[in-house]
Amino acid sequence: MAEEAPPTSARPRISIRIIFGDEAMLGPGKAQLLEKIQETGSIAAAGRTMSMSYKRAWMLVEEMNRVFREPLVDSTRGGAKGGGARLTEAGETVLLNYRKLEEIMAEAGAARIGLIQSLLRDMAEGT
Amino acid sequence: MAEEAPPTSARPRISIRIIFGDEAMLGPGKAQLLEKIQETGSIAAAGRTMSMSYKRAWMLVEEMNRVFREPLVDSTRGGAKGGGARLTEAGETVLLNYRKLEEIMAEAGAARIGLIQSLLRDMAEGT
Repeated sequence: MAEEAPPTSARPRISIRIIFGDEAMLGPGKAQLLEKIQETGSIAAAGRTMSMSYKRAWMLVEEMNRVFREPLVDSTRGGAKGGGARLTEAGETVLLNYRKLEEIMAEAGAARIGLIQSLLRDMAEGT
Repeated sequence: MAEEAPPTSARPRISIRIIFGDEAMLGPGKAQLLEKIQETGSIAAAGRTMSMSYKRAWMLVEEMNRVFREPLVDSTRGGAKGGGARLTEAGETVLLNYRKLEEIMAEAGAARIGLIQSLLRDMAEGT
């Protein structure tokens, strides 16, 4: 279902969080939730693919919708088939830019990440 | 007590986590802990500046020491004065590179972060 590369345990990866004001933030969890909503057309289904309760998935969506000028997710709550959801244009823009940011970061930070990596214990021997 | 700049609520900031293998990671919390150990010369005192229990501070230090080839923190546990701690050369290198990484990221990602920021609700009006 997910088209991520298989985890290469030796290679550190970087995750980013964008923190707005004091609390609200956009990190890997919310980004993945947006992506799964895009794929599944449903907040509940998206949450399930992430082993997340319906309630929590909704809470995260509401948090995002509150922080941005326009909602990122457009949804019909409940209803016979449990409602549907899709990303708005703002939602697609935010998700795209978050993913781009990850790429830029991995590239720009490669040398420093490599340096930190060189100090790591060989994962194969540890734990 | 902390010498961080006052929160500028309008400007999003970015935080990064470097994830090694499946679980171990280095993020803003551990980086700050290293920094505070450097400043205070004590794991307990460092933890206190972050409102962190002694036990948790120790656990995080042990986690870092385990993941890297050489310990990042050199410490004398307990003792009459509660022991002392300092960053090793590896610890200083890791902390320095993590901070550099943050700078690089903020710079390289500025345009995308700005774009996401432009979609944010004006913080002053919200919440």
